[in-house]
Amino acid sequence: MNSNRLEQGLQKLHEIDGEAGQAVINSLQHICPDLARLTIEFPFADVYSRPGLDLRAREIATVAALTALGHCAPQLKVHLNAALNVGCSEEEIKEVIIQMAVYAGFPASLNAMFAFAEVLEGRAG
Amino acid sequence: MNSNRLEQGLQKLHEIDGEAGQAVINSLQHICPDLARLTIEFPFADVYSRPGLDLRAREIATVAALTALGHCAPQLKVHLNAALNVGCSEEEIKEVIIQMAVYAGFPASLNAMFAFAEVLEGRAG
Amino acid sequence: MNSNRLEQGLQKLHEIDGEAGQAVINSLQHICPDLARLTIEFPFADVYSRPGLDLRAREIATVAALTALGHCAPQLKVHLNAALNVGCSEEEIKEVIIQMAVYAGFPASLNAMFAFAEVLEGRAG
Amino acid sequence: MNSNRLEQGLQKLHEIDGEAGQAVINSLQHICPDLARLTIEFPFADVYSRPGLDLRAREIATVAALTALGHCAPQLKVHLNAALNVGCSEEEIKEVIIQMAVYAGFPASLNAMFAFAEVLEGRAG
Amino acid sequence: MNSNRLEQGLQKLHEIDGEAGQAVINSLQHICPDLARLTIEFPFADVYSRPGLDLRAREIATVAALTALGHCAPQLKVHLNAALNVGCSEEEIKEVIIQMAVYAGFPASLNAMFAFAEVLEGRAG
Amino acid sequence: MNSNRLEQGLQKLHEIDGEAGQAVINSLQHICPDLARLTIEFPFADVYSRPGLDLRAREIATVAALTALGHCAPQLKVHLNAALNVGCSEEEIKEVIIQMAVYAGFPASLNAMFAFAEVLEGRAG
Repeated sequence: MNSNRLEQGLQKLHEIDGEAGQAVINSLQHICPDLARLTIEFPFADVYSRPGLDLRAREIATVAALTALGHCAPQLKVHLNAALNVGCSEEEIKEVIIQMAVYAGFPASLNAMFAFAEVLEGRAG
Repeated sequence: MNSNRLEQGLQKLHEIDGEAGQAVINSLQHICPDLARLTIEFPFADVYSRPGLDLRAREIATVAALTALGHCAPQLKVHLNAALNVGCSEEEIKEVIIQMAVYAGFPASLNAMFAFAEVLEGRAG
Repeated sequence: MNSNRLEQGLQKLHEIDGEAGQAVINSLQHICPDLARLTIEFPFADVYSRPGLDLRAREIATVAALTALGHCAPQLKVHLNAALNVGCSEEEIKEVIIQMAVYAGFPASLNAMFAFAEVLEGRAG
Repeated sequence: MNSNRLEQGLQKLHEIDGEAGQAVINSLQHICPDLARLTIEFPFADVYSRPGLDLRAREIATVAALTALGHCAPQLKVHLNAALNVGCSEEEIKEVIIQMAVYAGFPASLNAMFAFAEVLEGRAG
Repeated sequence: MNSNRLEQGLQKLHEIDGEAGQAVINSLQHICPDLARLTIEFPFADVYSRPGLDLRAREIATVAALTALGHCAPQLKVHLNAALNVGCSEEEIKEVIIQMAVYAGFPASLNAMFAFAEVLEGRAG
Repeated sequence: MNSNRLEQGLQKLHEIDGEAGQAVINSLQHICPDLARLTIEFPFADVYSRPGLDLRAREIATVAALTALGHCAPQLKVHLNAALNVGCSEEEIKEVIIQMAVYAGFPASLNAMFAFAEVLEGRAG
């Protein structure tokens, strides 16, 4: 049932993104509660809850994709935090970002690295 | 020295991409030997040879990025093979492709899954 | 319940995409049944079934987006057919494609127009 | 004649984008008057003035495309306003933005929805 | 007057793209004569006819952009031919393509180089 | 040897980008010295130092690509400065930006022109 997907999605969202994820959902609630719900249900209940790939690998994939796409700075920051939350090391995340220079070019890689600097500063602060 | 980078890159290329990687390099040799060399040196000697991220995680990142970018079908096929070569399971790779629907949309995800079907068929053949 | 989402999605898929949509789902079933199901559920049960925007406007939006993204030729063809299925005229669809030259450039627009030529030929055949 | 295209384009620009469109043109005048003129002539005289698709459908197509492209925040805001100006409802525009999650991923959709929140606030203010 | 823009555009198109450009226009005539006309007028009469940048530099810019965008293979081939037509050397064009690895990644660069191999073969044939 | 690539790259970086390039490298040093080094070595020692294309043409290609990609505002500004540094005129750079409207759409072109306005203001200030 839908209420189960929503609960399952919220639980997974909190496991991965913590407060940053909840903050995004809260902002969405004001402008479009349906998109807030869909953003919890499909990505977190339908996809991230699936077995077959551990959360560390899932976050490595997401950081890679958002770095390569290049136009998703807010979501990239959420997932750079998420990658640290689920156990990726700083070094591993930097390696993913460096590697994206090969596939999406240096600008994508540099912008993601500067976003990571802000994320690390935010966690240290 | 440059010759060392080239040797180191070639060795890493073969470890990851096997014959498919060599075939790309051979095709490039005919049209532009310098790009063939640069394609070995920077991606494989400078990036994939770095410690700090294991090859499985590197291929998960690359499959995610090439799926999300959407306009790199030949390179995606090479790295779907590479991901299998370095120990990712079929299931893990499918999960990465499914997850990209969240970040790059369903068309990117579907096209990558059909590319993976061709890759699996090619290996079974 | 999930079975309801699947049924609702399938019904909407057939209403919009007809046989072309079913053909995509059938191909996906062979390589990844879970992605086949997710492709029915989220896009068609969760999104296209929503009130608030009629199917003609939905297909205009999708044709515009897939033309602009540029790397989704198979999906664009499905939705060019779908746009005709739900009542958009040939002229309206051509206008959407022409308009995309403003936002995504002439190559995106030309490639979509040639795809539409194939779609029209296929329906006439 | 060119002067006619310019006049026709300006009239259409004002009909669609109102003051926000004129503000963009004014900014362009300072740095590159020729691009200001071309931005009026081709998009507004040559494309938006064409019959065959009403302005509501044109703005739905443009909002969809700019949401999907993801790197056009200033232009997206102009056209979110324009969509409201030519008679699209808030609900319709939100549906277009939600639907883009299917084709361009959730980050593109979320960023557009937050842009729409700013646009609505600006009109209410 | 519009007929002048069309004539001026056609002349510039032939100067740059030769038969390949005319072939594209002919194909467009069958499906959408208006887009054929717009494709001559805006790009070739309004933009390529402008003073301030010589045709060699214009083609270098276009080859760079189409290589980086990655989803415009047919247009890239037309402009790889055009670049040769207006006096760029093979070596210069290869350098532009190589340089794009820095900004758009190696897949974009490799795909463009293979497209250039086909173009050169076509001219030699 | 690597130290030679680094020295050669740094020299070329300063020749092209001047202080703006060094500022980017300095920022990178704090978060990821290895990416700082790779950003000097591959783009500047391996690519920009190559013969076969003069620096003016190289910067025209880069401005074109970064304008078209659309999600690289910081790097575009560095290279708009660089293009002026290596002898491109204001008019030539504006022509490249205008021309990108043909291939990547007006939003990409407008955003780049506004970035150029900031760059020119910064140099005048």
